[in-house]
Amino acid sequence: MKAVIVTIGDELLIGQVVDTNSVYIARELEAIGCSIVEKVAVGDTVEAIGGILERYQNKADLVILTGGLGPTKDDVTKKTFARYFNDELVLNQEVYVHVKKLIEDYYQRPITEMNRQQAFVPSKCTVLFNEAGTAPGMLMTREKTAFISLPGVPFEMRYLIDHKVIPYVKEVFKLDAIVHKTVLTAGIGESLLAEQIEKWEEELVSLNIRLAYLPKLGQVRLRLSKTGTDLEEIVSEMDGKIEELKLLIPEYFVGISDADSLFDELVPLLKAADITLATAESCTGGSIASKLSSVEGASVYFKGGAVTYATESKVSVLGVQQATIDRYTVVSEEVAIEMAVGARALYKADIAVATTGNAGPLKGDSDAEVGTVCIAVATAGGVHSYTFNFGKPRSKVIQASVEKVWMLLYKYLKNKV
Amino acid sequence: MKAVIVTIGDELLIGQVVDTNSVYIARELEAIGCSIVEKVAVGDTVEAIGGILERYQNKADLVILTGGLGPTKDDVTKKTFARYFNDELVLNQEVYVHVKKLIEDYYQRPITEMNRQQAFVPSKCTVLFNEAGTAPGMLMTREKTAFISLPGVPFEMRYLIDHKVIPYVKEVFKLDAIVHKTVLTAGIGESLLAEQIEKWEEELVSLNIRLAYLPKLGQVRLRLSKTGTDLEEIVSEMDGKIEELKLLIPEYFVGISDADSLFDELVPLLKAADITLATAESCTGGSIASKLSSVEGASVYFKGGAVTYATESKVSVLGVQQATIDRYTVVSEEVAIEMAVGARALYKADIAVATTGNAGPLKGDSDAEVGTVCIAVATAGGVHSYTFNFGKPRSKVIQASVEKVWMLLYKYLKNKV
Repeated sequence: MKAVIVTIGDELLIGQVVDTNSVYIARELEAIGCSIVEKVAVGDTVEAIGGILERYQNKADLVILTGGLGPTKDDVTKKTFARYFNDELVLNQEVYVHVKKLIEDYYQRPITEMNRQQAFVPSKCTVLFNEAGTAPGMLMTREKTAFISLPGVPFEMRYLIDHKVIPYVKEVFKLDAIVHKTVLTAGIGESLLAEQIEKWEEELVSLNIRLAYLPKLGQVRLRLSKTGTDLEEIVSEMDGKIEELKLLIPEYFVGISDADSLFDELVPLLKAADITLATAESCTGGSIASKLSSVEGASVYFKGGAVTYATESKVSVLGVQQATIDRYTVVSEEVAIEMAVGARALYKADIAVATTGNAGPLKGDSDAEVGTVCIAVATAGGVHSYTFNFGKPRSKVIQASVEKVWMLLYKYLKNKV
Repeated sequence: MKAVIVTIGDELLIGQVVDTNSVYIARELEAIGCSIVEKVAVGDTVEAIGGILERYQNKADLVILTGGLGPTKDDVTKKTFARYFNDELVLNQEVYVHVKKLIEDYYQRPITEMNRQQAFVPSKCTVLFNEAGTAPGMLMTREKTAFISLPGVPFEMRYLIDHKVIPYVKEVFKLDAIVHKTVLTAGIGESLLAEQIEKWEEELVSLNIRLAYLPKLGQVRLRLSKTGTDLEEIVSEMDGKIEELKLLIPEYFVGISDADSLFDELVPLLKAADITLATAESCTGGSIASKLSSVEGASVYFKGGAVTYATESKVSVLGVQQATIDRYTVVSEEVAIEMAVGARALYKADIAVATTGNAGPLKGDSDAEVGTVCIAVATAGGVHSYTFNFGKPRSKVIQASVEKVWMLLYKYLKNKV
């Protein structure tokens, strides 16, 4: 099962945007056992897109195109698509009703002729109905190849991949069994980890298990993959090796997880523990709160938080003592502790986490070295505090602080549950 | 002058990494007037790479390959390169001396056989000497097409693009001058904008100026491009058309900007106006605060914010009246107004923005339809409030709310400054 991903748009060719759409599609297809043989970016012209359709006809089983489906004149994908299949564009009534409602609800204005054009699709295509936006996905098959055209707006594309494309591929194509298992490790860097598990990694090779290192700030995911026919055998073989790994690096081994990050592991734990959280953020500026509230049903475990960016607001909002700031400076465990305790009381939460640090690039209200971050976790049982240095640049310091908070909460909850 | 960029590596095909190498190359080539007609990613196999060389032979003037030049066995680009040109690999003495010195100086160990292999290049190639690393770039020409193979390590690739490839291209190819200008618009959707500027867009066509729509939530960037020989004439022609556009859509025209988003335009305005901000966030959960604080020197304009996710915390933290919530529900302009006023006082800021809404997927503490968001902006001069429906999914509602806040702040500051 060979697939090709085509991204359409001049902005890709002139280097104006970084393409993350094809990364998402590749990952999702790969996960169900498709093999991506090429990814290609082309301009939004009839010649370029038409040439691509011809090029991969019967060379790939599936060609997924994304982009070039907007309502404006510079988007020619749909027209090219219809022409390639000797088809004509017709109004799809169901799509039209949907587009009309979206425009009327969202922009609170009547639908225009250009909006109406979005409801036109090739007469012979299978419409992949797009609940997330106005441009429908389209599926057409010619000879050995299925062609799918998707909009380029990331969340619309993702919606259609998840809800329409993946189910279609699973149903229509005979896929090799592929087993991926991902082990989440935290607290150790990639190269040091690689050295510690070198022998174990060599044994994987002899079992035809591929290993990929997927590093993130403070975390390294290890993805084991193997294709074959006997699914059960592969799973049991892999589980055995993961058990060995757990014994090899007990202090870094977080768990087997398909989750993209430690945060995704944390949420079910929070829900299971029936624990509520509050946040008090200085250097992380709301990043912890926004991530906590990004999850559906977050109100079960997240009460709220204070972003006390200015020093004075630590005092006025969270009740940090001015004397503590004067004595220990604003970037100190002492201040972090008072922030956490203050937020826990203010939001009536079971646990509160606090961050105060210097993300740089310049030293702020504190003399602390750039990259220094103090974190405190306040619970009914007391407060713990920590100091880290996350180096630079600014964005890395913020992100690393957030990841460290997940790790601290994860460890706390693991011991509790 | 047509160029193709080829990135090599399995990690690109399985979605393990985001490709930024081709973005860099595209931008640099585009800036000197090359036209990138395709970007393609392929696996690190003899068949895949060989197929690519054949495909673009005489179809492009320049093919730049990056990746697949590492010292390990799975890197086959160099071998494939030599085979395609009926050539053989020979040791390049100058490269060998350089590699040997690098290894000895940097790793402080003797050179290995695997390192020595990196000094082998096709006998007929022009070596692009790589001062920044061990793998040399290679240039070979066949018939109408020049092929350049570069290492995939970003800073080595960038070094060779800047110091070897760009000078080569400028010397060998006759390049047109190219001008891009990007106009940022906000507050109007792509299709409605396209209708409003239809006639203006037609005039661009007659001037051979290409127009691209680059939409984002709540914003559309319009990129004008033209190639030619007289740079000054193009710039003045384009500036004239942009002036016309400004008069055509004064309420949506933000400015001429290479900035990626409205937020990037907002920050200098905030700094220039010497205004401080506070936030009160419910449905956006800290996203506004975290973005405001992501910028270097944010403490100049950002005081802090309250994330009042739970209804009770709107009362206890921001001083929203329980009676207001009971009467109007928690998702209402009335509550947004009290949140904004409360945050402005709590953080002693010049302006406070507040969001309260239902991001979904389920209705929460309010009967408001999923997607409904109320936003209030409190200033010394009074409070303004607004209600929007941003549809779904959750992530889109949050993101659209944040973008709307930037738009409201932008308009306020523009009128003020």
